[in-house]
Amino acid sequence: MIETRLTDRFGIDHPVLCAPMALATGGRLAAAVSRAGGLGLIGGAYCDADWIAREFGAAGNTAVGCGFITWRLAETPDLLDDVLARKPAAIFLSFGDPTSFAPRIRAAGIPLICQVQTLADARLAAGAGADVIVAQGAEAGGHGEKRATLTLVPEVADWLAANAPETLLVAAGGIADGRGLAAALMLGADGVLVGSRFWASAESLAAPGMTEAAIAASGDDTIRSTVMDVARGLTWPGRFTARVLKNPVTERWHDDPEGLAAHADAIAADWKKGWDAGDPARANTFVGEAAGLIHDRPPAADILTAMVTKAEALLAGGWKRRVQ
Amino acid sequence: MIETRLTDRFGIDHPVLCAPMALATGGRLAAAVSRAGGLGLIGGAYCDADWIAREFGAAGNTAVGCGFITWRLAETPDLLDDVLARKPAAIFLSFGDPTSFAPRIRAAGIPLICQVQTLADARLAAGAGADVIVAQGAEAGGHGEKRATLTLVPEVADWLAANAPETLLVAAGGIADGRGLAAALMLGADGVLVGSRFWASAESLAAPGMTEAAIAASGDDTIRSTVMDVARGLTWPGRFTARVLKNPVTERWHDDPEGLAAHADAIAADWKKGWDAGDPARANTFVGEAAGLIHDRPPAADILTAMVTKAEALLAGGWKRRVQ
Ligand SMILES: Cc1cc2nc3c(=O)[nH]c(=O)nc-3n(C[C@H](O)[C@H](O)[C@H](O)COP(=O)(O)O)c2cc1C
Ligand SMILES: Cc1cc2nc3c(=O)[nH]c(=O)nc-3n(C[C@H](O)[C@H](O)[C@H](O)COP(=O)(O)O)c2cc1C
Repeated sequence: MIETRLTDRFGIDHPVLCAPMALATGGRLAAAVSRAGGLGLIGGAYCDADWIAREFGAAGNTAVGCGFITWRLAETPDLLDDVLARKPAAIFLSFGDPTSFAPRIRAAGIPLICQVQTLADARLAAGAGADVIVAQGAEAGGHGEKRATLTLVPEVADWLAANAPETLLVAAGGIADGRGLAAALMLGADGVLVGSRFWASAESLAAPGMTEAAIAASGDDTIRSTVMDVARGLTWPGRFTARVLKNPVTERWHDDPEGLAAHADAIAADWKKGWDAGDPARANTFVGEAAGLIHDRPPAADILTAMVTKAEALLAGGWKRRVQ
Repeated sequence: MIETRLTDRFGIDHPVLCAPMALATGGRLAAAVSRAGGLGLIGGAYCDADWIAREFGAAGNTAVGCGFITWRLAETPDLLDDVLARKPAAIFLSFGDPTSFAPRIRAAGIPLICQVQTLADARLAAGAGADVIVAQGAEAGGHGEKRATLTLVPEVADWLAANAPETLLVAAGGIADGRGLAAALMLGADGVLVGSRFWASAESLAAPGMTEAAIAASGDDTIRSTVMDVARGLTWPGRFTARVLKNPVTERWHDDPEGLAAHADAIAADWKKGWDAGDPARANTFVGEAAGLIHDRPPAADILTAMVTKAEALLAGGWKRRVQ
């Protein structure tokens, strides 16, 4: 058992959160992680009220939280009330200033988890009253920014220790096994948020062809780019790019933003066909550099158990065994 | 004492190497790290035979190694023989294919350390017969690429375990204190290579104004860019960018490569004045995201001792103390 302030505060067995991955973490995956002793967060980013109802239904009686993309939630703010009424285990906000949403969440007595990409973001989230700050590095799958997990986590830890010592800290980006979990604890995190590794789990909503492509890939084969957001017709704030598997679409357009804009309609049409077919060569396969550490698609509980067992062994001195 | 395959193989007390930082790691800094129980590597990247003679002289009888930038060494290959004749503790090569230099180094009986930026590089270095592979993440100060330390280290560790188990693995990029050292050991590294933190040491050749600027900065204030190489008139291979402190020069030109090329002569002239004055607003301050973890400029031995003491405490269970 790895006991930290995170397991303590949320009453969970393991300091591991399943990231609220849009279109991947539905109620089934979130509940599987919660039942295995972590905490699952439904990925509500691009959803509507029907989707929320269905996925909370799929989670059944298991406690799960729900995540939103902050700048998008501002466009459909009623969704927050809908989710708060379901008494989620936590609300997770990322990519934007959480200040305007925090009061409603706190008033409902629901823990607020804010994912941040820079030290400046962390200060903003702490000021908004976040209970947990997730420091996300650029190695992460999906949207993110430029800082690395390895430096962002200890820098935020130092700032929190001096300015908001009650606020918990979770590391995200590049954590896919017990080595990453143990490393995050050394850096001063109270736990980890895991995306890519759970995306490639049996319960994930990810298309089989996409997880197969990620399993065959190295971390070298991923790229941070805006190409796939343009292809999807999404207008993300400029500072955030999305880490995806490289494919013919990113290779063709990543260094040619003018050409991309000029051909946006044709690219979007082809993207749509690729997405519907679950085709990694034409659509966006959101996965992090951790792709190089992912070799199968097992049940989420197996992933969590293996991660915790390995981390426990390392923390008990297992890292030493490599002396020859 | 943290004993690993690295301390064993090199007969050193601590699994910590001081990076061969061009124009920063002279003989004095390298020797200070070696005398404190690590291993120092003189930064021979932009040097000539006179500089080598002077800096090896400054190291005195203390065992130190020497580092080169691989693609530049190809332009002055005799420097390698000069250094090999001094029986260095190791030769360190980074940024380019080490295959053509490896035989001379191995024939001289000198350990070969190769720094790599991707899994593909690691396979090349192992094939060339490297004794040690340094997996360098993008958070590093100075030149580097895109992968993050947190994912690159375990991915290379897995590859080495399966294909070259005798080859040691060292983590580089973002490691500035005992938290980073302990995390690297959890990830499967046999030790760490530390640049930025030793750059801001008493014995470093870095200009005082530059280390003061880094001490005042957060990791958010650094950027990977080619602007400063253009300003310095250096033609680096396109895949490598340099992490520096943001300043008015990077802010003005980073997103305007055409303008940068068009004004290259004026920018170079201003850079030269800035560099001679040690002015961080006009010249290149090479430092990593670890800037946010650096708050002073003490002697290198103090840095090393504090790093190892903290890592030992964490590895002995000190990470647990944060449960409330
Ligand atoms: C497929 C996928 C979808 C994601 N969608 C979201 C999202 O909708 N909202 C969000 O805050 N983060 C999202 N993320 C980022 C995660 O919150 C998390 O930061 C990231 O997965 C951690 O890095 P890792 O992928 O290396 O584990 C997504 C990540 C992936 C892989
Ligand atoms: C001031 C400075 C100069 C550097 N010069 C070199 C160099 O000449 N050759 C080299 O291989 N690496 C060089 N590096 C990169 C280091 O080898 C190492 O990868 C890096 O410093 C590790 O990351 P850190 O700065 O976060 O510790 C330099 C780094 C810095 C900070």
